[in-house]
Amino acid sequence: MIHNSKFNIQQAIDLVVIGTVGIDDVDTPFGKVKGVLGGSAVYAASAASFFSRPGIMSIAGKDLPEKFIKYLKKRKIDIEGIEFKGKTFHWEGFYEYDMNEAKTIKTELNSLAEFEAKLPEKYKSAQYLLLGNTDPDIQLEVISQMKSKPFIVLDTMNFWISSKKESLLKVIKKTNLFVLNEGEARQFFDTPNLIKAGKDALLLGPEFVVIKKGEHGALLFSKAGFFSAPGYPLEIVKDPTGAGDSFAGGMIGYLSKTKDVSERNIRRAMIYGSSIASACAESFSLDYIENMKLKNIKERYNALKEIRRF
Amino acid sequence: MIHNSKFNIQQAIDLVVIGTVGIDDVDTPFGKVKGVLGGSAVYAASAASFFSRPGIMSIAGKDLPEKFIKYLKKRKIDIEGIEFKGKTFHWEGFYEYDMNEAKTIKTELNSLAEFEAKLPEKYKSAQYLLLGNTDPDIQLEVISQMKSKPFIVLDTMNFWISSKKESLLKVIKKTNLFVLNEGEARQFFDTPNLIKAGKDALLLGPEFVVIKKGEHGALLFSKAGFFSAPGYPLEIVKDPTGAGDSFAGGMIGYLSKTKDVSERNIRRAMIYGSSIASACAESFSLDYIENMKLKNIKERYNALKEIRRF
Repeated sequence: MIHNSKFNIQQAIDLVVIGTVGIDDVDTPFGKVKGVLGGSAVYAASAASFFSRPGIMSIAGKDLPEKFIKYLKKRKIDIEGIEFKGKTFHWEGFYEYDMNEAKTIKTELNSLAEFEAKLPEKYKSAQYLLLGNTDPDIQLEVISQMKSKPFIVLDTMNFWISSKKESLLKVIKKTNLFVLNEGEARQFFDTPNLIKAGKDALLLGPEFVVIKKGEHGALLFSKAGFFSAPGYPLEIVKDPTGAGDSFAGGMIGYLSKTKDVSERNIRRAMIYGSSIASACAESFSLDYIENMKLKNIKERYNALKEIRRF
Repeated sequence: MIHNSKFNIQQAIDLVVIGTVGIDDVDTPFGKVKGVLGGSAVYAASAASFFSRPGIMSIAGKDLPEKFIKYLKKRKIDIEGIEFKGKTFHWEGFYEYDMNEAKTIKTELNSLAEFEAKLPEKYKSAQYLLLGNTDPDIQLEVISQMKSKPFIVLDTMNFWISSKKESLLKVIKKTNLFVLNEGEARQFFDTPNLIKAGKDALLLGPEFVVIKKGEHGALLFSKAGFFSAPGYPLEIVKDPTGAGDSFAGGMIGYLSKTKDVSERNIRRAMIYGSSIASACAESFSLDYIENMKLKNIKERYNALKEIRRF
């Protein structure tokens, strides 16, 4: 069976990341970039690539610059799952003084509107699946194509909470680890209290719920206990774009490497996710990758250990 | 010398808390209370009283109900430093849905306007001094009356940042541990970044700076290192009034009991402060005190240890 032509064990992808591949223009109080590589799947897979060789399930345009494809290949990110068609998804946004919230100037879906998410054969046996920001109906479609029963991490966004709640609830039910940010959690569960929101989220089905709080770290809820991850202290946040995706990607990358989805290991995975996300926020686009080795991430991990010791 | 009539070692107060004694009306989405005991010194001394026998330096009116005086005495809080004159300081406020910020309806200074802060003899040799929310000029006056060189914790408020910055800077220079909340830190140091604000605060003189972040915990800055204290997870916040004062009071109470102002011990003191502050926020006024024993606080301390473990 393993020698089946459609299922080559050497090529099989253990971690699949679904989301967007995009070209971004970003303006922050610290500077401005135009035409840089972005998208939820790219940020997440880049973060995961410190630990594993993820495959991206997405769509991009034929205009996607060759250097971006080279970058992905250099990171050992599999791109067989990226369909190339039309024009690449484009996002233009800015951050104001407090750097907390991205303000969108323009979103051009382009080929993303035609995203069908047909999984390559070699993706269908993955044991880890990250559902990044995409239409919940497409996420359901992807789950149904899987031959394995992967550990599913869902990282949703407020847009889908308001526009496709019913499909989203179906996805959440199939999810093992549900990640959402502070504002999304408050909106979704209609409460200002994050502890209540986290507990309510568990009732929807997932074994684990993570609420991301940016500079304030992240919270983990499960039957096994409650965990509060500290934020990595950053004096300068240059561009938070993709930090949330990097957190989720780093987390699932670490899980897929260690093959351990116990609550205790998810705690560690969150700290690795935070370490990578903080580095991401310190630079524009994916610039952090160049100077960031696994060794540096481990240094941040250890620093986070020390700053919460008492 | 010790047998000097004015300085009886048995009566000497080791921890002095300066601040307000007030009568509050508070309205929150969880209920409403009228004419309850409040004030920064009362909240802080109550929290400190789990560990030590603080003395309050304040002013109250002759109308302060006898039951409130009984409460303070029962907590073994020394009230020789409270002058009784005219009418008690009165605050009326409410909290909206998000419970984050107290909105003031009315503040009646009453006798507080005549607060002169003449320290009783037995307070002058205290080794720990908490400067709660009061006029910085009065705080300077109190410091000048001290015969000892106490460890000074300053817990200021945005009102003084805008109205008496120069005097406040003088107080900060004499302070060992400067406590301020998230919003105050951003305002004071004109930055959205709390890490930068904390580092800037150290430059003003204090050895230690603590930034309180409510539900998100607190940060400690010093030359010795950086510490991030988790918030105690509360599903219900009934009334956050006094939680910040309780944090500072619990912290200095623990320090005065352990007689150790090392960075490592200040970390522990912060966790004790958080434990007490969280209990305070779960009830109106000081209602939490009745059901809260040192044993319960230690349970929260241990829980906070567990929720930070990875």
